[in-house]
Amino acid sequence: MSMTKNNEQQMILPEPTIRRLPWYLSYVRMLDNLHVEYVSSTQISKELNVQSSQIAKDLSFLNIRGKTRIGYEVRSLLMELENFLGFNRKHDAVVIGTGSLGTALMQDRGLENYGLNIVAGFDVRSEVIGKHLGGLPVLDINEMPSWMSEHHASIAILTVPVERAQETADLAIASGVTALWNFTPYRIKAPEDVVIANTSIYAHLAIIYNRMHKSNSENRQD
Amino acid sequence: MSMTKNNEQQMILPEPTIRRLPWYLSYVRMLDNLHVEYVSSTQISKELNVQSSQIAKDLSFLNIRGKTRIGYEVRSLLMELENFLGFNRKHDAVVIGTGSLGTALMQDRGLENYGLNIVAGFDVRSEVIGKHLGGLPVLDINEMPSWMSEHHASIAILTVPVERAQETADLAIASGVTALWNFTPYRIKAPEDVVIANTSIYAHLAIIYNRMHKSNSENRQD
Repeated sequence: MSMTKNNEQQMILPEPTIRRLPWYLSYVRMLDNLHVEYVSSTQISKELNVQSSQIAKDLSFLNIRGKTRIGYEVRSLLMELENFLGFNRKHDAVVIGTGSLGTALMQDRGLENYGLNIVAGFDVRSEVIGKHLGGLPVLDINEMPSWMSEHHASIAILTVPVERAQETADLAIASGVTALWNFTPYRIKAPEDVVIANTSIYAHLAIIYNRMHKSNSENRQD
Repeated sequence: MSMTKNNEQQMILPEPTIRRLPWYLSYVRMLDNLHVEYVSSTQISKELNVQSSQIAKDLSFLNIRGKTRIGYEVRSLLMELENFLGFNRKHDAVVIGTGSLGTALMQDRGLENYGLNIVAGFDVRSEVIGKHLGGLPVLDINEMPSWMSEHHASIAILTVPVERAQETADLAIASGVTALWNFTPYRIKAPEDVVIANTSIYAHLAIIYNRMHKSNSENRQD
Protein backbone atom coordinates (compact mmCIF):
# COMPACT_ATOMS: atom_id res chain seq x y z
CA MET A 1 0.00 0.00 0.00
CA SER A 2 1.34 3.41 -0.91
CA MET A 3 1.90 5.99 1.79
CA THR A 4 -0.74 8.65 1.30
CA LYS A 5 -1.01 11.80 3.39
CA ASN A 6 -3.89 10.19 5.23
CA ASN A 7 -1.83 7.25 6.32
CA GLU A 8 0.89 9.48 7.66
CA GLN A 9 -1.68 11.38 9.70
CA GLN A 10 -3.18 8.12 10.89
CA MET A 11 0.10 7.20 12.56
CA ILE A 12 -0.08 10.05 15.03
CA LEU A 13 -3.83 9.87 15.68
CA PRO A 14 -4.76 9.41 19.37
CA GLU A 15 -6.77 6.22 20.02
CA PRO A 16 -9.66 8.04 21.80
CA THR A 17 -10.16 9.97 18.54
CA ILE A 18 -10.15 6.70 16.57
CA ARG A 19 -12.82 5.37 18.92
CA ARG A 20 -15.04 8.41 18.34
CA LEU A 21 -14.66 8.66 14.54
CA PRO A 22 -16.90 5.61 13.86
CA TRP A 23 -19.70 7.32 15.84
CA TYR A 24 -19.44 10.36 13.57
CA LEU A 25 -19.36 8.05 10.55
CA SER A 26 -22.51 6.18 11.55
CA TYR A 27 -24.36 9.46 12.10
CA VAL A 28 -23.10 11.01 8.87
CA ARG A 29 -24.09 7.86 6.94
CA MET A 30 -27.63 8.26 8.22
CA LEU A 31 -27.69 11.91 7.20
CA ASP A 32 -26.41 10.99 3.75
CA ASN A 33 -29.14 8.36 3.40
CA LEU A 34 -31.64 11.12 4.20
CA HIS A 35 -30.01 13.35 1.52
CA VAL A 36 -28.94 15.97 4.06
CA GLU A 37 -26.18 18.12 2.53
CA TYR A 38 -24.48 19.91 5.42
CA VAL A 39 -23.90 19.20 9.11
CA SER A 40 -22.30 21.39 11.80
CA SER A 41 -20.17 20.19 14.72
CA THR A 42 -22.86 21.68 16.99
CA GLN A 43 -25.42 19.40 15.39
CA ILE A 44 -23.14 16.34 15.69
CA SER A 45 -22.49 17.36 19.31
CA LYS A 46 -26.20 17.41 20.19
CA GLU A 47 -26.81 14.10 18.47
CA LEU A 48 -23.85 12.19 19.93
CA ASN A 49 -23.33 13.83 23.35
CA VAL A 50 -19.74 14.78 22.55
CA GLN A 51 -18.43 18.33 23.18
CA SER A 52 -18.51 20.32 19.97
CA SER A 53 -14.92 21.52 20.53
CA GLN A 54 -13.83 17.86 20.79
CA ILE A 55 -15.57 17.06 17.50
CA ALA A 56 -13.87 19.96 15.74
CA LYS A 57 -10.52 18.74 17.13
CA ASP A 58 -11.15 15.12 16.08
CA LEU A 59 -12.21 16.14 12.57
CA SER A 60 -9.18 18.43 12.22
CA PHE A 61 -7.12 15.24 11.62
CA LEU A 62 -9.06 14.71 8.38
CA ASN A 63 -8.52 16.39 5.02
CA ILE A 64 -11.73 18.37 5.36
CA ARG A 65 -12.67 21.83 6.60
CA GLY A 66 -16.10 23.01 7.66
CA LYS A 67 -17.58 26.19 6.22
CA THR A 68 -18.54 29.05 8.54
CA ARG A 69 -22.20 28.87 9.57
CA ILE A 70 -22.90 25.95 7.19
CA GLY A 71 -20.62 23.25 8.59
CA TYR A 72 -19.22 20.17 6.86
CA GLU A 73 -20.44 18.83 3.54
CA VAL A 74 -22.05 15.49 4.49
CA ARG A 75 -20.94 13.51 1.44
CA SER A 76 -17.33 14.71 1.70
CA LEU A 77 -17.22 14.09 5.44
CA LEU A 78 -18.59 10.57 4.90
CA MET A 79 -15.93 9.76 2.30
CA GLU A 80 -13.10 11.28 4.35
CA LEU A 81 -14.14 9.33 7.45
CA GLU A 82 -14.39 6.03 5.56
CA ASN A 83 -11.02 6.61 3.92
CA PHE A 84 -9.37 7.71 7.13
CA LEU A 85 -10.67 4.75 9.15
CA GLY A 86 -9.64 2.28 6.47
CA PHE A 87 -13.24 1.18 5.94
CA ASN A 88 -13.09 1.67 2.17
CA ARG A 89 -10.00 -0.53 1.79
CA LYS A 90 -10.33 -4.32 1.74
CA HIS A 91 -8.64 -6.21 4.61
CA ASP A 92 -8.68 -10.00 4.14
CA ALA A 93 -9.42 -11.99 7.27
CA VAL A 94 -10.00 -15.54 8.44
CA VAL A 95 -12.27 -16.64 11.27
CA ILE A 96 -10.77 -19.27 13.59
CA GLY A 97 -13.42 -21.13 15.55
CA THR A 98 -16.79 -21.39 13.80
CA GLY A 99 -19.01 -21.60 16.89
CA SER A 100 -21.98 -19.25 17.31
CA LEU A 101 -19.97 -16.02 17.28
CA GLY A 102 -17.60 -17.13 14.50
CA THR A 103 -20.57 -18.21 12.40
CA ALA A 104 -22.33 -14.88 13.01
CA LEU A 105 -19.27 -12.95 11.85
CA MET A 106 -18.94 -15.11 8.71
CA GLN A 107 -22.61 -14.51 7.88
CA ASP A 108 -22.58 -10.78 8.64
CA ARG A 109 -22.31 -9.05 5.27
CA GLY A 110 -22.34 -5.72 7.13
CA LEU A 111 -18.66 -6.09 8.03
CA GLU A 112 -17.77 -5.52 4.38
CA ASN A 113 -18.99 -1.93 4.77
CA TYR A 114 -16.22 -1.58 7.34
CA GLY A 115 -13.45 -2.96 5.12
CA LEU A 116 -13.39 -6.45 6.59
CA ASN A 117 -13.36 -9.16 3.92
CA ILE A 118 -13.68 -12.57 5.57
CA VAL A 119 -12.43 -15.21 3.14
CA ALA A 120 -12.62 -18.48 5.11
CA GLY A 121 -13.24 -20.09 8.47
CA PHE A 122 -11.11 -22.69 10.26
CA ASP A 123 -12.12 -25.26 12.84
CA VAL A 124 -10.99 -28.50 14.48
CA ARG A 125 -14.37 -30.25 14.40
CA SER A 126 -14.73 -32.80 11.63
CA GLU A 127 -18.52 -32.25 11.51
CA VAL A 128 -18.15 -28.66 10.28
CA ILE A 129 -14.96 -28.96 8.17
CA GLY A 130 -15.86 -28.94 4.48
CA LYS A 131 -19.17 -27.13 5.01
CA HIS A 132 -19.93 -23.53 4.05
CA LEU A 133 -21.08 -20.61 6.23
CA GLY A 134 -22.33 -17.43 4.60
CA GLY A 135 -20.98 -18.84 1.33
CA LEU A 136 -17.47 -19.19 2.78
CA PRO A 137 -15.62 -22.49 3.24
CA VAL A 138 -14.87 -23.95 6.68
CA LEU A 139 -11.43 -25.58 6.54
CA ASP A 140 -9.37 -27.85 8.77
CA ILE A 141 -7.24 -25.72 11.07
CA ASN A 142 -4.27 -27.97 10.32
CA GLU A 143 -4.47 -26.77 6.72
CA MET A 144 -4.12 -23.13 7.73
CA PRO A 145 -0.34 -22.74 7.19
CA SER A 146 -0.46 -24.16 3.65
CA TRP A 147 -3.73 -22.37 2.80
CA MET A 148 -2.37 -19.05 4.05
CA SER A 149 0.79 -19.36 1.97
CA GLU A 150 -1.51 -19.01 -1.06
CA HIS A 151 -4.19 -16.63 0.24
CA HIS A 152 -2.32 -14.18 2.48
CA ALA A 153 -5.08 -13.01 4.84
CA SER A 154 -3.59 -10.44 7.20
CA ILE A 155 -6.15 -10.62 10.04
CA ALA A 156 -7.15 -13.65 12.13
CA ILE A 157 -10.40 -13.38 14.09
CA LEU A 158 -10.17 -15.60 17.17
CA THR A 159 -13.54 -17.00 18.24
CA VAL A 160 -12.24 -20.22 19.77
CA PRO A 161 -12.82 -21.52 23.32
CA VAL A 162 -10.56 -19.64 25.75
CA GLU A 163 -8.31 -22.63 26.44
CA ARG A 164 -7.43 -22.85 22.72
CA ALA A 165 -6.73 -19.11 22.34
CA GLN A 166 -2.93 -19.09 22.69
CA GLU A 167 -2.15 -22.15 20.55
CA THR A 168 -4.54 -20.90 17.85
CA ALA A 169 -2.93 -17.45 17.90
CA ASP A 170 0.53 -19.05 17.63
CA LEU A 171 -0.58 -21.06 14.59
CA ALA A 172 -2.15 -18.00 12.92
CA ILE A 173 1.00 -15.95 13.45
CA ALA A 174 3.19 -18.79 12.16
CA SER A 175 0.89 -18.85 9.11
CA GLY A 176 1.60 -15.17 8.42
CA VAL A 177 -1.20 -13.05 9.88
CA THR A 178 -0.07 -9.69 11.23
CA ALA A 179 -3.15 -8.83 13.30
CA LEU A 180 -5.31 -10.77 15.76
CA TRP A 181 -8.84 -9.76 16.63
CA ASN A 182 -9.25 -11.63 19.90
CA PHE A 183 -12.82 -12.30 21.06
CA THR A 184 -11.72 -14.63 23.86
CA PRO A 185 -11.16 -13.31 27.40
CA TYR A 186 -7.59 -14.66 27.21
CA ARG A 187 -4.57 -12.32 27.05
CA ILE A 188 -2.70 -13.51 23.98
CA LYS A 189 1.10 -13.42 24.06
CA ALA A 190 2.60 -12.54 20.66
CA PRO A 191 5.72 -11.01 19.09
CA GLU A 192 5.97 -7.20 19.32
CA ASP A 193 5.11 -6.61 15.67
CA VAL A 194 1.77 -8.45 15.79
CA VAL A 195 -1.28 -6.21 16.30
CA ILE A 196 -3.78 -7.48 18.89
CA ALA A 197 -7.22 -6.01 19.54
CA ASN A 198 -9.21 -7.50 22.39
CA THR A 199 -12.99 -7.49 22.16
CA SER A 200 -13.91 -9.31 25.32
CA ILE A 201 -17.67 -9.11 25.56
CA TYR A 202 -17.50 -10.70 29.01
CA ALA A 203 -15.49 -7.75 30.34
CA HIS A 204 -18.27 -5.49 29.07
CA LEU A 205 -20.81 -7.53 31.02
CA ALA A 206 -18.82 -6.97 34.23
CA ILE A 207 -18.89 -3.25 33.52
CA ILE A 208 -22.66 -3.28 32.93
CA TYR A 209 -23.31 -5.17 36.19
CA ASN A 210 -21.01 -2.83 38.10
CA ARG A 211 -22.69 0.30 36.75
CA MET A 212 -26.15 -1.14 37.44
CA HIS A 213 -25.19 -1.41 41.10
CA LYS A 214 -23.77 2.09 41.28
CA SER A 215 -25.96 4.69 42.95
CA ASN A 216 -24.65 7.63 40.96
CA SER A 217 -24.54 8.07 37.22
CA GLU A 218 -20.80 8.64 36.92
CA ASN A 219 -19.22 6.60 34.13
CA ARG A 220 -22.68 5.62 32.96
CA GLN A 221 -21.60 5.40 29.34
CA ASP A 222 -18.18 4.69 27.87
CA MET B 1 -30.62 -7.52 46.09
CA SER B 2 -29.13 -7.03 49.54
CA MET B 3 -26.14 -4.79 49.98
CA THR B 4 -23.23 -7.08 50.74
CA LYS B 5 -19.71 -5.90 51.45
CA ASN B 6 -18.76 -6.86 47.92
CA ASN B 7 -21.37 -4.62 46.41
CA GLU B 8 -20.22 -1.68 48.47
CA GLN B 9 -16.67 -2.26 47.32
CA GLN B 10 -17.84 -2.61 43.75
CA MET B 11 -19.16 0.93 43.80
CA ILE B 12 -15.73 2.46 44.28
CA LEU B 13 -13.91 0.08 41.95
CA PRO B 14 -12.00 1.81 39.12
CA GLU B 15 -13.17 0.69 35.65
CA PRO B 16 -9.65 -0.25 34.41
CA THR B 17 -9.58 -2.76 37.27
CA ILE B 18 -12.98 -4.12 36.24
CA ARG B 19 -11.63 -4.55 32.72
CA ARG B 20 -8.65 -6.57 33.97
CA LEU B 21 -10.50 -8.81 36.46
CA PRO B 22 -12.12 -10.96 33.71
CA TRP B 23 -8.62 -11.72 32.35
CA TYR B 24 -7.59 -13.01 35.76
CA LEU B 25 -10.82 -14.98 35.98
CA SER B 26 -10.34 -16.70 32.63
CA TYR B 27 -6.77 -17.67 33.59
CA VAL B 28 -7.76 -18.87 37.06
CA ARG B 29 -10.63 -20.93 35.58
CA MET B 30 -8.12 -22.71 33.36
CA LEU B 31 -5.85 -23.41 36.35
CA ASP B 32 -8.81 -24.74 38.32
CA ASN B 33 -9.73 -27.04 35.42
CA LEU B 34 -6.15 -28.36 35.58
CA HIS B 35 -6.52 -28.89 39.38
CA VAL B 36 -3.80 -26.36 40.19
CA GLU B 37 -4.18 -25.31 43.86
CA TYR B 38 -2.18 -22.09 44.25
CA VAL B 39 -1.17 -19.22 41.98
CA SER B 40 1.08 -16.23 42.70
CA SER B 41 0.67 -12.72 41.31
CA THR B 42 4.10 -13.19 39.69
CA GLN B 43 2.75 -16.22 37.83
CA ILE B 44 -0.41 -14.33 36.75
CA SER B 45 1.83 -11.44 35.71
CA LYS B 46 3.97 -13.61 33.42
CA GLU B 47 0.91 -15.25 31.90
CA LEU B 48 -1.12 -12.09 31.24
CA ASN B 49 1.53 -9.42 30.67
CA VAL B 50 0.26 -7.23 33.51
CA GLN B 51 2.64 -5.81 36.15
CA SER B 52 2.61 -7.98 39.25
CA SER B 53 2.16 -4.90 41.49
CA GLN B 54 -0.92 -3.96 39.45
CA ILE B 55 -2.36 -7.45 39.92
CA ALA B 56 -1.82 -7.31 43.69
CA LYS B 57 -3.53 -3.90 43.73
CA ASP B 58 -6.49 -5.11 41.60
CA LEU B 59 -6.98 -8.21 43.75
CA SER B 60 -6.80 -6.16 46.96
CA PHE B 61 -10.40 -5.05 46.18
CA LEU B 62 -11.51 -8.66 46.71
CA ASN B 63 -12.13 -10.47 49.99
CA ILE B 64 -9.06 -12.62 49.53
CA ARG B 65 -5.45 -12.47 50.68
CA GLY B 66 -2.51 -14.33 49.16
CA LYS B 67 -0.20 -16.35 51.39
CA THR B 68 3.50 -15.50 51.50
CA ARG B 69 5.52 -17.55 48.99
CA ILE B 70 2.47 -19.69 48.07
CA GLY B 71 0.15 -17.09 46.59
CA TYR B 72 -3.63 -17.22 46.19
CA GLU B 73 -5.72 -20.33 46.56
CA VAL B 74 -7.03 -20.95 43.02
CA ARG B 75 -10.52 -22.16 43.96
CA SER B 76 -11.11 -19.27 46.40
CA LEU B 77 -9.79 -16.71 43.93
CA LEU B 78 -12.07 -18.14 41.23
CA MET B 79 -15.13 -17.88 43.44
CA GLU B 80 -14.26 -14.39 44.70
CA LEU B 81 -13.73 -13.13 41.15
CA GLU B 82 -17.03 -14.60 39.90
CA ASN B 83 -18.88 -13.17 42.86
CA PHE B 84 -17.22 -9.79 42.60
CA LEU B 85 -17.85 -9.45 38.86
CA GLY B 86 -21.50 -10.46 39.25
CA PHE B 87 -20.96 -13.53 37.04
CA ASN B 88 -22.52 -15.91 39.57
CA ARG B 89 -25.73 -13.87 39.84
CA LYS B 90 -28.45 -14.18 37.18
CA HIS B 91 -29.21 -11.03 35.15
CA ASP B 92 -32.23 -11.42 32.87
CA ALA B 93 -31.86 -9.90 29.42
CA VAL B 94 -33.70 -9.61 26.11
CA VAL B 95 -32.10 -9.44 22.66
CA ILE B 96 -33.59 -6.82 20.36
CA GLY B 97 -32.85 -7.53 16.72
CA THR B 98 -32.39 -11.20 15.87
CA GLY B 99 -30.04 -10.82 12.91
CA SER B 100 -26.76 -12.72 12.75
CA LEU B 101 -25.25 -11.20 15.91
CA GLY B 102 -28.50 -11.30 17.93
CA THR B 103 -29.00 -14.93 16.93
CA ALA B 104 -25.44 -15.80 17.92
CA LEU B 105 -25.92 -14.25 21.36
CA MET B 106 -29.22 -16.12 21.87
CA GLN B 107 -27.55 -19.40 20.94
CA ASP B 108 -24.40 -18.84 23.00
CA ARG B 109 -24.89 -20.87 26.19
CA GLY B 110 -21.47 -19.60 27.32
CA LEU B 111 -22.96 -16.26 28.37
CA GLU B 112 -24.73 -18.01 31.26
CA ASN B 113 -21.31 -18.63 32.81
CA TYR B 114 -21.03 -14.85 32.96
CA GLY B 115 -24.37 -14.26 34.67
CA LEU B 116 -26.29 -13.28 31.54
CA ASN B 117 -29.63 -15.05 31.25
CA ILE B 118 -31.22 -14.23 27.90
CA VAL B 119 -34.96 -14.94 28.13
CA ALA B 120 -36.34 -13.80 24.76
CA GLY B 121 -35.63 -12.07 21.48
CA PHE B 122 -37.64 -9.31 19.80
CA ASP B 123 -37.84 -8.39 16.14
CA VAL B 124 -39.96 -6.49 13.62
CA ARG B 125 -39.80 -9.08 10.84
CA SER B 126 -42.90 -11.23 10.55
CA GLU B 127 -40.88 -14.15 9.12
CA VAL B 128 -38.95 -14.63 12.39
CA ILE B 129 -41.63 -13.66 14.94
CA GLY B 130 -43.03 -16.78 16.60
CA LYS B 131 -39.94 -18.88 15.87
CA HIS B 132 -37.38 -20.05 18.44
CA LEU B 133 -33.62 -19.44 18.56
CA GLY B 134 -31.48 -21.43 20.99
CA GLY B 135 -34.73 -22.60 22.56
CA LEU B 136 -35.86 -19.00 23.24
CA PRO B 137 -38.93 -17.35 21.68
CA VAL B 138 -38.67 -14.51 19.13
CA LEU B 139 -41.48 -12.05 19.83
CA ASP B 140 -43.01 -9.05 18.07
CA ILE B 141 -41.22 -5.91 19.22
CA ASN B 142 -44.61 -4.21 19.63
CA GLU B 143 -45.40 -6.72 22.35
CA MET B 144 -42.32 -5.75 24.37
CA PRO B 145 -44.00 -3.29 26.79
CA SER B 146 -46.74 -5.74 27.80
CA TRP B 147 -44.37 -8.73 27.86
CA MET B 148 -41.85 -6.85 30.02
CA SER B 149 -44.53 -5.88 32.54
CA GLU B 150 -44.73 -9.59 33.36
CA HIS B 151 -41.12 -10.71 32.90
CA HIS B 152 -39.01 -7.81 34.18
CA ALA B 153 -35.75 -8.29 32.26
CA SER B 154 -33.34 -5.57 33.35
CA ILE B 155 -30.94 -5.61 30.37
CA ALA B 156 -31.73 -5.02 26.69
CA ILE B 157 -29.12 -6.13 24.17
CA LEU B 158 -29.36 -3.95 21.06
CA THR B 159 -28.36 -5.77 17.89
CA VAL B 160 -30.62 -3.81 15.52
CA PRO B 161 -29.59 -1.91 12.37
CA VAL B 162 -27.99 1.40 13.34
CA GLU B 163 -30.92 3.52 12.08
CA ARG B 164 -33.28 1.70 14.48
CA ALA B 165 -30.97 2.03 17.51
CA GLN B 166 -32.49 5.09 19.17
CA GLU B 167 -36.18 4.22 18.75
CA THR B 168 -35.51 0.66 19.94
CA ALA B 169 -33.63 1.94 22.97
CA ASP B 170 -36.51 4.32 23.76
CA LEU B 171 -39.00 1.45 23.61
CA ALA B 172 -36.83 -0.79 25.81
CA ILE B 173 -36.44 1.95 28.41
CA ALA B 174 -40.18 2.69 28.34
CA SER B 175 -40.68 -1.05 28.89
CA GLY B 176 -38.60 -0.92 32.06
CA VAL B 177 -35.05 -2.04 31.28
CA THR B 178 -32.38 -0.26 33.30
CA ALA B 179 -29.35 -1.17 31.19
CA LEU B 180 -28.62 -1.19 27.46
CA TRP B 181 -25.85 -3.25 25.90
CA ASN B 182 -25.47 -1.41 22.62
CA PHE B 183 -23.81 -3.31 19.77
CA THR B 184 -24.66 -0.65 17.17
CA PRO B 185 -22.19 2.12 16.33
CA TYR B 186 -24.88 4.66 17.29
CA ARG B 187 -24.55 6.83 20.42
CA ILE B 188 -27.80 6.18 22.26
CA LYS B 189 -29.40 9.10 24.15
CA ALA B 190 -31.07 7.99 27.39
CA PRO B 191 -32.08 9.28 30.84
CA GLU B 192 -29.22 9.65 33.36
CA ASP B 193 -30.19 6.59 35.39
CA VAL B 194 -30.03 4.15 32.45
CA VAL B 195 -26.74 2.25 32.15
CA ILE B 196 -25.31 2.07 28.63
CA ALA B 197 -22.35 -0.05 27.56
CA ASN B 198 -21.18 0.33 23.98
CA THR B 199 -19.59 -2.66 22.27
CA SER B 200 -18.99 -1.28 18.81
CA ILE B 201 -17.07 -3.94 16.97
CA TYR B 202 -16.64 -1.52 14.05
CA ALA B 203 -14.68 0.88 16.24
CA HIS B 204 -12.37 -2.01 17.10
CA LEU B 205 -11.81 -2.64 13.40
CA ALA B 206 -10.70 0.97 12.94
CA ILE B 207 -8.22 0.50 15.76
CA ILE B 208 -6.85 -2.71 14.23
CA TYR B 209 -6.37 -1.06 10.81
CA ASN B 210 -4.74 1.96 12.41
CA ARG B 211 -2.28 -0.15 14.42
CA MET B 212 -1.47 -2.30 11.37
CA HIS B 213 -0.32 0.84 9.60
CA LYS B 214 1.78 2.06 12.50
CA SER B 215 5.51 1.59 12.14
CA ASN B 216 6.17 1.25 15.86
CA SER B 217 4.60 -1.13 18.33
CA GLU B 218 3.23 1.47 20.72
CA ASN B 219 -0.36 0.77 21.78
CA ARG B 220 -0.16 -2.58 20.07
CA GLN B 221 -2.60 -4.19 22.51
CA ASP B 222 -5.37 -2.62 24.56
